[in-house]
Amino acid sequence: MQIKIQLDESEIPRQWYNLAADLPTPMLPPLGPDGQPVKPEMLAPVFPMNIIEQEVSTERWITIPEEVLEILYRWRPSPLYRARALEKALGTPARIYYKNEGVSPAGSHKPNTAVAQAWYNKQFGIKKITTETGAGQWGSALSFACALLGLECKVFMVRISFEQKPFRRLMMETWGGKCIASPSQETQAGRAVLAEHPETPGSLAIAISEAVEAAVTDPTGQTRYSLGSVLNHVMLHQTIIGLEAKKQLAKAGEKKVDVVIGCAGGGSNFAGISFPFVCDKIHGADITIIPAEPSSCPTLTRGPFTYDYGDMSGMTPLLPMHTLGHAFIPPPIHAGGLRYHGMAPLVSQAAIEGLIEPRAYHQLECYRAAVLFARTEGFIPAPETSHAIAAAIDEANKAKEEGKEKVILFNWSGHGLMDLVGYDKFFRGLLEDYPLPEDMLRDSLKAIEPLPKAKPVKSGKW
Amino acid sequence: MQIKIQLDESEIPRQWYNLAADLPTPMLPPLGPDGQPVKPEMLAPVFPMNIIEQEVSTERWITIPEEVLEILYRWRPSPLYRARALEKALGTPARIYYKNEGVSPAGSHKPNTAVAQAWYNKQFGIKKITTETGAGQWGSALSFACALLGLECKVFMVRISFEQKPFRRLMMETWGGKCIASPSQETQAGRAVLAEHPETPGSLAIAISEAVEAAVTDPTGQTRYSLGSVLNHVMLHQTIIGLEAKKQLAKAGEKKVDVVIGCAGGGSNFAGISFPFVCDKIHGADITIIPAEPSSCPTLTRGPFTYDYGDMSGMTPLLPMHTLGHAFIPPPIHAGGLRYHGMAPLVSQAAIEGLIEPRAYHQLECYRAAVLFARTEGFIPAPETSHAIAAAIDEANKAKEEGKEKVILFNWSGHGLMDLVGYDKFFRGLLEDYPLPEDMLRDSLKAIEPLPKAKPVKSGKW
Repeated sequence: MQIKIQLDESEIPRQWYNLAADLPTPMLPPLGPDGQPVKPEMLAPVFPMNIIEQEVSTERWITIPEEVLEILYRWRPSPLYRARALEKALGTPARIYYKNEGVSPAGSHKPNTAVAQAWYNKQFGIKKITTETGAGQWGSALSFACALLGLECKVFMVRISFEQKPFRRLMMETWGGKCIASPSQETQAGRAVLAEHPETPGSLAIAISEAVEAAVTDPTGQTRYSLGSVLNHVMLHQTIIGLEAKKQLAKAGEKKVDVVIGCAGGGSNFAGISFPFVCDKIHGADITIIPAEPSSCPTLTRGPFTYDYGDMSGMTPLLPMHTLGHAFIPPPIHAGGLRYHGMAPLVSQAAIEGLIEPRAYHQLECYRAAVLFARTEGFIPAPETSHAIAAAIDEANKAKEEGKEKVILFNWSGHGLMDLVGYDKFFRGLLEDYPLPEDMLRDSLKAIEPLPKAKPVKSGKW
Repeated sequence: MQIKIQLDESEIPRQWYNLAADLPTPMLPPLGPDGQPVKPEMLAPVFPMNIIEQEVSTERWITIPEEVLEILYRWRPSPLYRARALEKALGTPARIYYKNEGVSPAGSHKPNTAVAQAWYNKQFGIKKITTETGAGQWGSALSFACALLGLECKVFMVRISFEQKPFRRLMMETWGGKCIASPSQETQAGRAVLAEHPETPGSLAIAISEAVEAAVTDPTGQTRYSLGSVLNHVMLHQTIIGLEAKKQLAKAGEKKVDVVIGCAGGGSNFAGISFPFVCDKIHGADITIIPAEPSSCPTLTRGPFTYDYGDMSGMTPLLPMHTLGHAFIPPPIHAGGLRYHGMAPLVSQAAIEGLIEPRAYHQLECYRAAVLFARTEGFIPAPETSHAIAAAIDEANKAKEEGKEKVILFNWSGHGLMDLVGYDKFFRGLLEDYPLPEDMLRDSLKAIEPLPKAKPVKSGKW
């Protein structure tokens, strides 16, 4: 009875898939403060040129460097599982498969791009990478990658998380990453905030400012900044997930997949599992592709597609994307990785083009799905991952109602061993479904009205 | 460049290996309070008969039930890794391999026996299993197994750990296990302690008493007790680790293994990796087999082989084993799973017969090894596992000195993501090497002198 479908090292995909090559309408460019397209070289102080080239590339296939593969081999190809016990519990005729990205050393899909980004930085002669992190998922993945490639890593961690959630910080330090509470005394941005609000809990916006400043002001010129989601090259690096899954489904004897699901925050884990299937859909395949997002941060299901800042303080270029407005502050759901006001431009455009069908899920439904999963399949999911599970259960129940033997694939983006407090609250009845703060949403959408409009792209049925 | 050597489901071992069949001298029996051998049926209120039969079996190969395999497939066969980055950092000509047991849902090797034990209990008509747990590693593994097999699980967790280490308790609860602080009001043993010491932090001895009492006093007769190490059937269930490793080494092109290493607390993880190789050694193979234990709890390197109680309060039968005396309380090293005064009788007898070569390691050396491992290989090891890594590094350095291309295999028994506090203390310089409490050792060895002597077994060169 096949449960786990593996690939050998020799079967690992050797190229990433770039959806930008196949989208029916070309991607819109990011815009600078002057409303004009940002030229690649303008980003050179922030990112190394080889990554910037990937960011703007429209090549369909991009070769994965051999040394990147050699690190990925530690957990890749990641196993694909047939969720037989979950199927049985649901009494569904659907066959449910999940790709387990929790087997990476950092416990999630994040290292897929962390390793690639660290390697390209190293190739470009960079010695040190800076980044920001909220709860610490991304900061730990980048620390891991830098450790294995011999680079310095400095992570600005939002102070409140730094103090309340020490475990991911400890992961970073174990890998030799330097993790400091933001705002810090190390940057002008940090010092300015501290001078005015010495007791501030910090924010992701401040941490981004600090990380970028620390990169661009390094007098040696050998420091760059790194981002863990949203950007095109990050989506690219994650497509190895879906490319592996395709090979594994074929090995399992599946000729066709009906539904592909990933949870969606900034978009990279969803893009990773789904983009190779979005390609199939563009070329005529009949697949339902579902990004599952939180009802209390419904970027794809409620936010318009327009230009907005990637961060809360308006420092980044303007990106064409689905957004709730950069001033939108999502309710404090436990799935911290999904609390982002925007969505990766590539994912956003796939949505606008009708290639994907976003759904939103409430927190309690997701925890119920996560607990059912843990007690049948055995692995304890991250709160983010639980959104994909909720969607998969929905689709499996639909298949049951319709009496159809559908094939459902979802991305099990990470384990929840560092996030057990949410489960505790769930069992104690202390978790709630937050209503969407409609007033705040109205205000934050109003605030971005003066920004340039993203010109509508061709819409159609693929 | 091969890093990860996998086996397919179809290649999983179908039988466990029982070292008792091959030991040059027969195992000594456990003794009851009267000094007479314990008859299997006397254990029937505590364990189901099918497990008792396994405990006393001398069959060489015991078939693994298909339904046990179907659950093990979730993480088994577990990957074998070639530690190329660690080899490079050490500059050793040795080829180092490690078996990654951290990929199980509970994060360690413990579920290998938890699933088997839960299944045998279920087969015997048992509805509920009780156990005790210290830091929670075993309690979480058993909760996981019971969840997947539809059994109730009740875990008595030492109160101080229950309060200070909530995360493993949360794992148990996520899997539906009932975890209660011990001493509790639920048993006579617990109530008696609480009446006298209402503020007691609890102890493993009290928790064992409570778990056994809760099993044997259930009026329905459908509750039994389960133990996570020490006993013969637990060693048996873990041998799947070493049996897989043999197949994987062959796949990697290795014709011979020179050194096999596992950390040793109660003995099950060491037995799991090593017993199939101990068998080879009995039959003439030239292999160095090393149980790595803490210098501050040096059961095999300092304790005599004699009869002693398995628990601190003298409730269990007398077991023939290496022991520091049941009153010995090890210093508070972070490797909680290695803080046990005794050693599995099968491992102890292998030591007495000269088949294995125990070594002891200090805490700081182990943490240094763990950090080097995390920064080269990427995975963060559990503090217990770090002892095996320290021994592997020792052997790799020896191979370097000797200029020999040795093949070293060790068991990477679990990840350290739930035990990061020890790393934090290590980096802050707050960890120490505890000297062995020699006075206490002398007293605790004196205290067991009146107990029956284990008659010496034949010793020789194999």
